[in-house]
Amino acid sequence: MKGKFISLEGGEGSGKTTAIQFIRQWLESHRIPYILTREPGGTPLAEEIRELILTSREEPVNDVAELLLVFAARAQHLAEKIQPALDQGTWVISDRFLDSSYVYQGKARGGNVQMLDLLASWVVGENKPDATLVLDVPVELGQERVVQRQQQDRLDKESAVFHQKVRDGFLERAMAEPDRVKVIDASLSLDAVQKQIEDQLMQLNTAWSGDV
Amino acid sequence: MKGKFISLEGGEGSGKTTAIQFIRQWLESHRIPYILTREPGGTPLAEEIRELILTSREEPVNDVAELLLVFAARAQHLAEKIQPALDQGTWVISDRFLDSSYVYQGKARGGNVQMLDLLASWVVGENKPDATLVLDVPVELGQERVVQRQQQDRLDKESAVFHQKVRDGFLERAMAEPDRVKVIDASLSLDAVQKQIEDQLMQLNTAWSGDV
Repeated sequence: MKGKFISLEGGEGSGKTTAIQFIRQWLESHRIPYILTREPGGTPLAEEIRELILTSREEPVNDVAELLLVFAARAQHLAEKIQPALDQGTWVISDRFLDSSYVYQGKARGGNVQMLDLLASWVVGENKPDATLVLDVPVELGQERVVQRQQQDRLDKESAVFHQKVRDGFLERAMAEPDRVKVIDASLSLDAVQKQIEDQLMQLNTAWSGDV
Repeated sequence: MKGKFISLEGGEGSGKTTAIQFIRQWLESHRIPYILTREPGGTPLAEEIRELILTSREEPVNDVAELLLVFAARAQHLAEKIQPALDQGTWVISDRFLDSSYVYQGKARGGNVQMLDLLASWVVGENKPDATLVLDVPVELGQERVVQRQQQDRLDKESAVFHQKVRDGFLERAMAEPDRVKVIDASLSLDAVQKQIEDQLMQLNTAWSGDV
């Protein structure tokens, strides 16, 4: 029986880290084997690619180059980490996955959507997540949370207009694939956010047990 | 007036380094402004991608990941180094370029040619070299030259079958685009090899002067 593949998505400050901690506790309490991973990254090579993407540098980074780096890391991540885990019945929880490419490189930077679709079909194909949880917060709230952190990377430093495009982009992804992409209202209380996440996990776990 | 873009191609031990030295002397003696560059690489970011590609590692490198890394480096190289130089009237001499991707990732590793064509059209488009010189030697001669070197990288260590595919692949590229891709018989004496290269350079320089 294959494991379930869950990706967490959302703009900066949407509470992904807290949500992942909750999912982890939930999986442990249900004795479900799992791994946590992230994108870009997830394997030694993919993490090295991540460093190239996120490092601030004087050299302008060409948009097509960035898009191809992200998908290179994803191809490696799927082949060397995600697929082997799922095949062993291990659940995979990924902090970001394919939808982030549509939102950051596509919607927010105006990238070539035809190129994104083809890269997605080559690299991901049928291996999309079983469920993608979009943690949705208004841009101002996300930004308030971010400024409380010490370190900011290149993407954190983008403008408010950019962050609004990111939020809109994730909501569009949910409208385009409502069966897979679920919007979690992450502006509510911690308990209320966790309740929404738990509902999604329970649905997946039922589907999972049903596959036996 | 735009500069001319020349790429040098060939398997391991074909004599690219010696050929590039000769081209350099020829350009200097003709007072033609030029830069030397290479692929994968050519800019700080693209050189970092090169390191990722060529480093020996325990983790198997997924073929699609490698292909996307090569094209990511190429997009950066074209945007940040090659195009700006050509626009200033500087000639660009690149140690490897697009044809190496068709030969190494396509022909030799059996990569997806449709994917290669689309990546080539997105990343390179009309910006192909004005001339590509393929230094052609029998596989055995190339290998004899390689074993005399001290360092061998991951690609050098491939099998003789692989190297034969590489040679065949470059010859196919020349047949497919005979106006751009010229085969130089690099098994001949140094003088005879340089004479063939000089002929190509003179043709390009005439075309160049004619553009004024």
